[in-house]
Amino acid sequence: MAPPSYISYNGGDQNGVALAPKSSGLLLDPEQLRRQGHQVIDFIADYYGRMGDYPVHPSVSPGFLRKKLPASAPLRPEPADAFGAALRDVRDLILPGMTHWQSPRHFAHFPASSSTVGALGEALTAGINVVPFTWAASPAATELEMVAVDWLGKALHLPESLLFCGGGGGTILGTSCEAILCVLVAARDRKLADIGSGRLGDLVVYCSDQTHFAFRKAAHIAGIHRDHCRAIPTYRDTMFGLSPADLEAAVQADVDAGLVPLFLCATVGTTQTTAVDPILGLCAVAARHGMWVHVDAAYAGAALVCPEFRHAIDGAEAVDSFSMNAHKWLLTNNDCCALWVKSPPLLVAALGTEQEYILKDAAAEGHDVVDYKDWSVMLTRRFRALKLWLVLRCYGVEGLRDHVRAHVRMAELFESFVKDDARFEVTAERTFALVCFRLRAPERLGGEKAANDLNRRLLEDVNATAAGPYMSSAKVAGVYMLRCAIGSTLTEERHVREAWKVVQDRAASLLRKMEKVITCTAVA
Amino acid sequence: MAPPSYISYNGGDQNGVALAPKSSGLLLDPEQLRRQGHQVIDFIADYYGRMGDYPVHPSVSPGFLRKKLPASAPLRPEPADAFGAALRDVRDLILPGMTHWQSPRHFAHFPASSSTVGALGEALTAGINVVPFTWAASPAATELEMVAVDWLGKALHLPESLLFCGGGGGTILGTSCEAILCVLVAARDRKLADIGSGRLGDLVVYCSDQTHFAFRKAAHIAGIHRDHCRAIPTYRDTMFGLSPADLEAAVQADVDAGLVPLFLCATVGTTQTTAVDPILGLCAVAARHGMWVHVDAAYAGAALVCPEFRHAIDGAEAVDSFSMNAHKWLLTNNDCCALWVKSPPLLVAALGTEQEYILKDAAAEGHDVVDYKDWSVMLTRRFRALKLWLVLRCYGVEGLRDHVRAHVRMAELFESFVKDDARFEVTAERTFALVCFRLRAPERLGGEKAANDLNRRLLEDVNATAAGPYMSSAKVAGVYMLRCAIGSTLTEERHVREAWKVVQDRAASLLRKMEKVITCTAVA
Repeated sequence: MAPPSYISYNGGDQNGVALAPKSSGLLLDPEQLRRQGHQVIDFIADYYGRMGDYPVHPSVSPGFLRKKLPASAPLRPEPADAFGAALRDVRDLILPGMTHWQSPRHFAHFPASSSTVGALGEALTAGINVVPFTWAASPAATELEMVAVDWLGKALHLPESLLFCGGGGGTILGTSCEAILCVLVAARDRKLADIGSGRLGDLVVYCSDQTHFAFRKAAHIAGIHRDHCRAIPTYRDTMFGLSPADLEAAVQADVDAGLVPLFLCATVGTTQTTAVDPILGLCAVAARHGMWVHVDAAYAGAALVCPEFRHAIDGAEAVDSFSMNAHKWLLTNNDCCALWVKSPPLLVAALGTEQEYILKDAAAEGHDVVDYKDWSVMLTRRFRALKLWLVLRCYGVEGLRDHVRAHVRMAELFESFVKDDARFEVTAERTFALVCFRLRAPERLGGEKAANDLNRRLLEDVNATAAGPYMSSAKVAGVYMLRCAIGSTLTEERHVREAWKVVQDRAASLLRKMEKVITCTAVA
Repeated sequence: MAPPSYISYNGGDQNGVALAPKSSGLLLDPEQLRRQGHQVIDFIADYYGRMGDYPVHPSVSPGFLRKKLPASAPLRPEPADAFGAALRDVRDLILPGMTHWQSPRHFAHFPASSSTVGALGEALTAGINVVPFTWAASPAATELEMVAVDWLGKALHLPESLLFCGGGGGTILGTSCEAILCVLVAARDRKLADIGSGRLGDLVVYCSDQTHFAFRKAAHIAGIHRDHCRAIPTYRDTMFGLSPADLEAAVQADVDAGLVPLFLCATVGTTQTTAVDPILGLCAVAARHGMWVHVDAAYAGAALVCPEFRHAIDGAEAVDSFSMNAHKWLLTNNDCCALWVKSPPLLVAALGTEQEYILKDAAAEGHDVVDYKDWSVMLTRRFRALKLWLVLRCYGVEGLRDHVRAHVRMAELFESFVKDDARFEVTAERTFALVCFRLRAPERLGGEKAANDLNRRLLEDVNATAAGPYMSSAKVAGVYMLRCAIGSTLTEERHVREAWKVVQDRAASLLRKMEKVITCTAVA
């Protein structure tokens, strides 16, 4: 018997009492799902096929899309092929207003690297649609998460003490900010248990002036006083890494003032310049003061698949927790933030819940099962482990290394272009696949004083170039610089060469224009 | 020219220096994505086709899957069809260990209702894979989110003051706990700005003893003292709703003690029995004491699409914020928690960030654009609006009503079965599509004292029945009860009838067994 056709229902008389279907019928009919699913796959494949044709960033004004769409949802869908009509709207109205993060010319943000397996892993997860908030709520989902984080941790050369196989353990969350918040609350609760719960106002947390705002946000949410978040200055001669001596001085000053040092957030690969904080030395300071050390390797964590980058986390044996975003540069589609902790019981003590309606599985009784709801802010969770496990399984560790190394080589190439052109300079030493650079402002054009404005204009011109690259900026130690972050899965060497050519052309044109203004002014 | 074949790479000599590909080639090749994507769609469609055959909950022991999988990720994938092999593992190793939330016999938890459009919307989002953390980072994604939350808010009959079109605004987050945490921090910051930042330890928050643990978790994370979260008792004669008079008394006692009332979390549709807190009366109390009122309608919010349920939020004009999970009962696959606030600037003041590397779009300058990173814990975000918009667009408001009403009617049917069988009783009045019930314990079998144990055994027997339903339990006012939550998209009336038959059979068998024990004991 055919399922009832959805759109033929009358759906309610004037009193709002429905003539409802016996079942939801076509809402989840396997054959319809198959047919429309193939449409969606073709849509995605076509999108990637056309990716190079889209401007990376659209020329639109705020409100452009809201104006085009009705103010309310339809009471009933279009009578024929509502899904096909909606897909056409996605193609014709929505995609042209997107910033295309998968474009091979997207160099602005750290990547959100997509892959066939990552995208399809997400699709599979969406189809299966379980909520693995406890082991019993979906045993295989919880166990696959445990397997996947151990696999990933080993692939990244993390110390075993952070993995399940070494007495620690990991989980998959949405973002770094969430990961930091979770461990910060665990650290806070442990400390307050020691010194008394009334002293929340005395706790102090530490980071560098390069640390991502996510840390300050997490600290603020967790009730740390806004004035008790120390962003310690960094300097160019130490590549903007946090100095252990400076940390020691800051901590000692707080201790002397009667405050209580709680937490250090060290970064491996900062957002602005991919600076690496020296973990070994920082952990020694933290240990002397009983502080929790978290390493945020949101972007650069992916590079740790390559043994040649392992040195970036020398000393990681001493950290309490570590997080990285596999959705950034490791081919695992958004979102997938892996968090590992040395002591899972501390997380569970801070974030655990217990309620009667949560089914205890007979099989789980007496076992020390992981209920991931107690490892995060969220109770509801997605089955994110599936895509990560598929990516590791289908590309292999060497495949991930190839992927990272290809981008690092392209970044080396771009860096060499900058260095070979005397008009430009590299403004922060390259470590991974981000190149920070700027145009030097010749003395006659205003020199150092005018350099920031000049480079601001250069970025605007580069990003406004039709079929050009899309880059971003940073401002470090007062210096405004352009950021070229290579990491889109589709980026090839030719895109990097073309991007550099655009930068050179725009710079030449900009310099010419400015020379003219100066000459005219001088003549006048 | 064919892209380089992925698996043929050598991938590094002994010094770890890679012979890397020029591009990532097959990692994101449109034609491969199309081919493997069709495989995945067929996999999902087949899964739904077979859904009825799976036991809802697997018979597995902790460690069952971890034992079967290798301890580390492969260095290289299988030489031939690694993706196909991985899919076979998903089918043969992973799916048999899942709890199948989409099973038509899943009555245990509130649903995670899947639909063709919801699942494919997620797939599409995964393929497009953008990170709309600011308007500029993907203008169409931000604008579609604004449109989708206004559409949804109107469909749910929310007051306009919570919608963009009425001066408020909404966003899409992952879960209710995150939503509550965000508004709690906004409320906290506003209050501390008034009374001084040193008084965090004096703030008190309120809920009922039926409120989901998510609220206590959010309050704890936000630094509210564990002893300052008041869970006010509720009673059966008011259907476990929170009494405004009891709230007033609790608040006044705290004020008299020198504490500061901050926040009330009211629930529409509690987890244990779908109790509804009376918003109108509670808001009047909160207003007298300057408290923020949040309504958590995680589950029952979906029912508000039906005008006949609008009364459940009478008085909502006075609330400060409102959240519901479209991923629970509104056909929008996991995760999709919509949060609306009356005053977006309060959220942004608490959660906003500002950093140089964030691209300001020239088009956005001078406009009051929404940067959603400032509305949530998370900075990285997924493009969740797309699936929600597609669901609203393709099913229409009447389609959603039909869906909700079909489940409500089935719950009415199940409830009538319980009422018609004198051995059973309904333990909490049904409002939406959850029926709470229990077996009465006859006096000769121990009466009220033995009732909880009897029903615990009944639930175990029901859930252990081959091809049977999967239910859960609640314990309210000392009474242990079974929960039959109807909401799976695939559930039809026959599944409800079959489920009741299993309950009756298991109950009869259990009662017989106990009679025997008593008779034997008496004879002996």
